[in-house]
Amino acid sequence: MKILMGGEPEAELLQQVRETAPGAEVVTAAEVAAQPDLLREVEIVYGGLRREHWPQAGRLRWLQTMGAGVNGLMTPEVLAHPAVITNASGIHAEPITEHMFGLLLMQTRRLAAAWDQQKECCWNSRALHEGLGMLAGKTLGVLGVGAIGACSARVGQAFGMRVVGLRRSGEPCPHVEQMYTPDTRLEFFAACDVVMNSLPLTEKTRRFMGPPEFAALPPGAIVINTGRGPTIDTEALMESLRAGRLGSALLDVTDPEPLPADHPLWSMEYVIITPHYSGAHPGYNRRAAAIFVDNLRRYVAGEPLRNVVDKREGY
Amino acid sequence: MKILMGGEPEAELLQQVRETAPGAEVVTAAEVAAQPDLLREVEIVYGGLRREHWPQAGRLRWLQTMGAGVNGLMTPEVLAHPAVITNASGIHAEPITEHMFGLLLMQTRRLAAAWDQQKECCWNSRALHEGLGMLAGKTLGVLGVGAIGACSARVGQAFGMRVVGLRRSGEPCPHVEQMYTPDTRLEFFAACDVVMNSLPLTEKTRRFMGPPEFAALPPGAIVINTGRGPTIDTEALMESLRAGRLGSALLDVTDPEPLPADHPLWSMEYVIITPHYSGAHPGYNRRAAAIFVDNLRRYVAGEPLRNVVDKREGY
Repeated sequence: MKILMGGEPEAELLQQVRETAPGAEVVTAAEVAAQPDLLREVEIVYGGLRREHWPQAGRLRWLQTMGAGVNGLMTPEVLAHPAVITNASGIHAEPITEHMFGLLLMQTRRLAAAWDQQKECCWNSRALHEGLGMLAGKTLGVLGVGAIGACSARVGQAFGMRVVGLRRSGEPCPHVEQMYTPDTRLEFFAACDVVMNSLPLTEKTRRFMGPPEFAALPPGAIVINTGRGPTIDTEALMESLRAGRLGSALLDVTDPEPLPADHPLWSMEYVIITPHYSGAHPGYNRRAAAIFVDNLRRYVAGEPLRNVVDKREGY
Repeated sequence: MKILMGGEPEAELLQQVRETAPGAEVVTAAEVAAQPDLLREVEIVYGGLRREHWPQAGRLRWLQTMGAGVNGLMTPEVLAHPAVITNASGIHAEPITEHMFGLLLMQTRRLAAAWDQQKECCWNSRALHEGLGMLAGKTLGVLGVGAIGACSARVGQAFGMRVVGLRRSGEPCPHVEQMYTPDTRLEFFAACDVVMNSLPLTEKTRRFMGPPEFAALPPGAIVINTGRGPTIDTEALMESLRAGRLGSALLDVTDPEPLPADHPLWSMEYVIITPHYSGAHPGYNRRAAAIFVDNLRRYVAGEPLRNVVDKREGY
């Protein structure tokens, strides 16, 4: 059994792989590059497989990614291939929740303006009193209630927010007072003072937030996006900001991405942009590897894998 | 019964005062300035009373402040005066908790660095991966467990932090796993990855955090102060930062205050300064007035007032 491991796998992980799947042979991306025939024998991939390698990987049965979103992976070659794909969903819940609340509080507490003052060695309290907002008492709308949304809901409630959610299944979730579905999306948006969007990108979520959704939001609402840029219609977002309706847009993901230097979003008022790193955190590789090793144990034992991606749904 | 009300009281508040204390006469600071003799008849003050006016306010029985900290008020004249002092403690819990977590996440998620990139229209994710921190799994130490600390403890736990506290009484508090007292302060600091200091300034809390306390903190710890600047020995704090021991200092209050433009703190790495506005929030005046009106009802009914300041303890 050959396992292709991306990057330069650490000794500790290699040891865990050997213990979990005795007899397995680990090959690295560098070895595959030098000896392309190895691809034909690879049964498991941890990390990624280049698009042009899929047709040659005839024996591949399972690929475990290191990230959560798989929208970039779903090429026709991959959809046609029988291999199972699993992702690292779950390890991003805390860091992305922390990133979203960091962005939100940076906006409501005017911390970017305070940081600008600090660089001038300027102590001007009065200038920062204007435009402050408070989370307590507001309604938080969690858009896409997976691992991240469930974590954000818990924190939002602790801040004294009322939490509502939107998920395809409509199933309840702890800390979420009311759950909406895509069919009732306009009622959902009408209820939200703050939207935390962590939707995956699929054909159903592309431009999920367009002109009608922005029009449904209460004036002054704050939209945060840490999912995928194209789930929001950027033109509609900018239009709502320019019209003075949308209060603020806090974006870790954009469309397009990376955001070109001449894009108007960069310098719009009430916009904060962070370059797609909300899921990054110390220990990321270790936590992703733990999911792989657990799935490897299941694979060897013939048990169902966890975090299996529905290729047709795209997440 | 004459009530001196600071600033320009709003019509709604005046109406509430008339309904709560029929027959009371409201005088404004402007009227007192024009007719100083009025001071002798004032029984209640809402807001503040200038230091030189205290000896003349012979009939003053009760003063309600609009803030929480009363350290600036405790002059010998005030200590000697029999009037009861009440404060607006409680209304700051949510905004200050939000401000503290905003500062904390701005630091751990590197949002100030991202903001600097944004101003250059620069998308550089890699540069922001270094130095990220995660709250989940860390220990939050709440220094001074009053209304603010209790609120911060709830939020910290929701973020997946272990929460410990330090309060004079040592009494337990929801969401606080272990409570320390001033006698065991070094054990408290040794346990803290993050310290949230909202101590009032009294003779017992002045320089509460000095060299031994900074030495007790684990390397890389983050100290947040929203209480009063002098509860921290600024030199000891800067020394610990320079030595690479203290990870970060996030300060809404400083010593001295306002911080002079040439103070080294302004430009030290790992320091974020906001100019003493963590308690400010929309609706502040209305919420402070609600405490005054409730206390006025109690005063008229002869019931004990709430939020009475212990003049000797100084908070």
